[in-house]
Amino acid sequence: MVEITLVGIGTGNTDHVTLEGRRAIAEAALILIPRKAAKDDLAHLRERIVAEADSRARIVHFDYPTRDERLPYQERVRVWHDEIAHRWQAAIGDEPAATLLVWGDPGLYDSTLRIAARLPDARTRVIPGITALQALTAAHAIPFNTVNGPVSVTTGRRLREHGWPDAAETVVVMLDGGCSFCTLPSDLHIWWGAYLGMPEQILDHGPLSEATPRIIAARAAARERHGWIMDTYLLRRPE
Amino acid sequence: MVEITLVGIGTGNTDHVTLEGRRAIAEAALILIPRKAAKDDLAHLRERIVAEADSRARIVHFDYPTRDERLPYQERVRVWHDEIAHRWQAAIGDEPAATLLVWGDPGLYDSTLRIAARLPDARTRVIPGITALQALTAAHAIPFNTVNGPVSVTTGRRLREHGWPDAAETVVVMLDGGCSFCTLPSDLHIWWGAYLGMPEQILDHGPLSEATPRIIAARAAARERHGWIMDTYLLRRPE
Repeated sequence: MVEITLVGIGTGNTDHVTLEGRRAIAEAALILIPRKAAKDDLAHLRERIVAEADSRARIVHFDYPTRDERLPYQERVRVWHDEIAHRWQAAIGDEPAATLLVWGDPGLYDSTLRIAARLPDARTRVIPGITALQALTAAHAIPFNTVNGPVSVTTGRRLREHGWPDAAETVVVMLDGGCSFCTLPSDLHIWWGAYLGMPEQILDHGPLSEATPRIIAARAAARERHGWIMDTYLLRRPE
Repeated sequence: MVEITLVGIGTGNTDHVTLEGRRAIAEAALILIPRKAAKDDLAHLRERIVAEADSRARIVHFDYPTRDERLPYQERVRVWHDEIAHRWQAAIGDEPAATLLVWGDPGLYDSTLRIAARLPDARTRVIPGITALQALTAAHAIPFNTVNGPVSVTTGRRLREHGWPDAAETVVVMLDGGCSFCTLPSDLHIWWGAYLGMPEQILDHGPLSEATPRIIAARAAARERHGWIMDTYLLRRPE
C-alpha cells in the first residue's frame, strides 16, 4: 500500500500554494519531481516551492518518457501514462508514501490522477490548487460567469473541431497549442493570459476581431523568448 | 480613489488560504466582514483566518440588507447590490483601501466583483482562491474532466429549467438550493459534497438513481442540524 499525495501548486506563482499544500510538502518524506527539458523554469519552480516550505523530503527526479507518435492519439496517451506510472514505481521503491507537486489543480486537465490510478495498491489524496481559470479571471479582475449563467470549459482541440458551443455565454479554453479562437464569430470578447501568476505574465483583452492579431503576435514572440508558453483564455458573448 | 482587494479564501478550510491571500490579509489596514445571521459559522471562519494571518487590520462589520422579494429577480439583485455597495462605502469612509475575504474564488458565482464595480473611483485587485469545484473533485480524488473532454459549469436553477445540456459529458452544478438532479436521466453518475473542506464535510457518490434518495436524506438532516447548507456536485455520463 502506497499513499500518493498530489498537491496543486497553482499556475507559477509560488504564493499560489495554499497553507494545506505547504504543510503537505513540509511533512513529505519523498517528493517526485519530473525533469522536463523544454520547461526548465517549471522544474525550478517546484524546487523553489519545496525549499520555501522548509521540507526535508528526499527529492527524486524522474524523466518523462517520449510519446510514441506512430500510435493513434488515445493509445499513445495510454501507453505514455503506463510508462510514467512505471517510473514512479521505480522512484518510490519500498517507500510507504510519495508526494507530487502538480501544476494548477490535480483535477483539471491534468493526467496525474490517471497515472496514480495505475499504481497497484495506491491510495490517492488530493490537495486542491489554484487553476489557470482562477488565475486568468483574477488577473483580469473579471467574473468567471455572467449572473447565474453557465460556463463551458473546453480545450483548443475541441474548439477547433466543434466551434462555439451552442447556447454558450462564456467559454474558457485550456490546452490550446495554437490560436483556436481565430475562426470564431467576431462579436465575441476575449480575455487572454499567458504565464499566469509568473513575473512573465502577459494579459490582453478586447473585442476578438481587434485582439486576435495582437495575441497571435505576442504569443509567438513570448514563445520564441522563453522556449515554451502556457496560455488560457475566456470568451464571452457581449451582454 | 480606493483600492479594493478581494481575497478568495476557499471553501471553509482555513488552510485553503493561499500564501498570497494570507499576505494580503496580514498587510491590510481595513477589512470588511459581513454579518450573516443564519451562517454564523462563516463569519467566524473569516475572523479566524484574519487572526491566523496575524493581521492588525481594523475590522469593520456590515449587515447585508434584506432583498425586496416583491421585485422581479434581476431587479431585486441589482437593487440589493447597490445597497451593499452603499454599506461598503459607509464602512470605508475616507480610507484609501479595503480588503474583503470572499468564500471560494471572487470570480466564481459570487457578486463581490459586481458590487465593487459600483464604487466610484475604485480599483479592484483579485487574489484567486480554491473554488468549490476544486474542493469537490479533490475530496473525491476524481478528475474534473474526461480526457480532453469539455465540462459545463451551471446552476441549479438552469439545470431545472433546461435539463441536461446537449452533448455534455460532465456537468458541475453550483448554487442549487434544492436537488435539481432529481429529474435527470438515471444513467448518470453523481459525486456530491456538502460543507466542502470543513470538519462537517459530507460526501456521497454513485449511480444517480441509487444516490438520489441518500443525498436528499443526508442534505435535509444536515440542513436541520447546522441551520444552513452549501453543497455542490458533479455529474458524468458513464464512459
